[in-house]
Amino acid sequence: MKIYFAGSIRGGRSDAALYHRLISYLKRNNTVLTEHVGNLDLQEKHGDLEIFRQDTAWLRECDCVIAECTCPSLGVGYELAYAEAQGKACHLFYDRSRTKLSAMLTGNPYFQIHPYQSEEEIYPVLDSILGH
Amino acid sequence: MKIYFAGSIRGGRSDAALYHRLISYLKRNNTVLTEHVGNLDLQEKHGDLEIFRQDTAWLRECDCVIAECTCPSLGVGYELAYAEAQGKACHLFYDRSRTKLSAMLTGNPYFQIHPYQSEEEIYPVLDSILGH
Repeated sequence: MKIYFAGSIRGGRSDAALYHRLISYLKRNNTVLTEHVGNLDLQEKHGDLEIFRQDTAWLRECDCVIAECTCPSLGVGYELAYAEAQGKACHLFYDRSRTKLSAMLTGNPYFQIHPYQSEEEIYPVLDSILGH
Repeated sequence: MKIYFAGSIRGGRSDAALYHRLISYLKRNNTVLTEHVGNLDLQEKHGDLEIFRQDTAWLRECDCVIAECTCPSLGVGYELAYAEAQGKACHLFYDRSRTKLSAMLTGNPYFQIHPYQSEEEIYPVLDSILGH
């Protein structure tokens, strides 16, 4: 599967290490188009227009979106609406002890939402989603 | 004009007083469909599905979207993509001394983006947008 992993970049990098672990797990059996989201030393090399064009191209190309939504992010919110419009499967994860997810996501029947309390709960759900 | 004002709710209420001032200004000559976003004592009274249905209905009904984007928010990101898909004019404001806006917004030629350094800069831009 080609996966678009969505996580906060400019909204805050407090969960970057978590993104890195999730992407490493997904990469064992899949292609992660947005591997840079988990880069702990992320340096933005491209202009904003180029980032937008590349990310929207990847959203059209991917088989599904896996979004870690604990850290609020305008970009992730935009990406999820874009993916929905493209009819892509969207799986959203968030730590329910750390945040209350936006009603624009939890109230939208299109999204498959997976609240968790500890990171270990995420991996079997990923296995189930990806058919491992 | 019917205005959809977008600002962070569950992403954080640090700018709620700013939203309140902007909405009060807009209301002098326009209808603000989402006046509750500037409510300093906001109590959520509705379920998430109802919020989602109402907000997307307002996004379809509005003449334009005015978004204060300084505080990262999944909901605002979602709303902006939804409004773009509906062909609504979208004006995004953010305090450039406090945040770097997502490349999914700044790199998207559809959005009209107005960075500011002090709040007073916002009001003449609103006048210009709204034709006062």
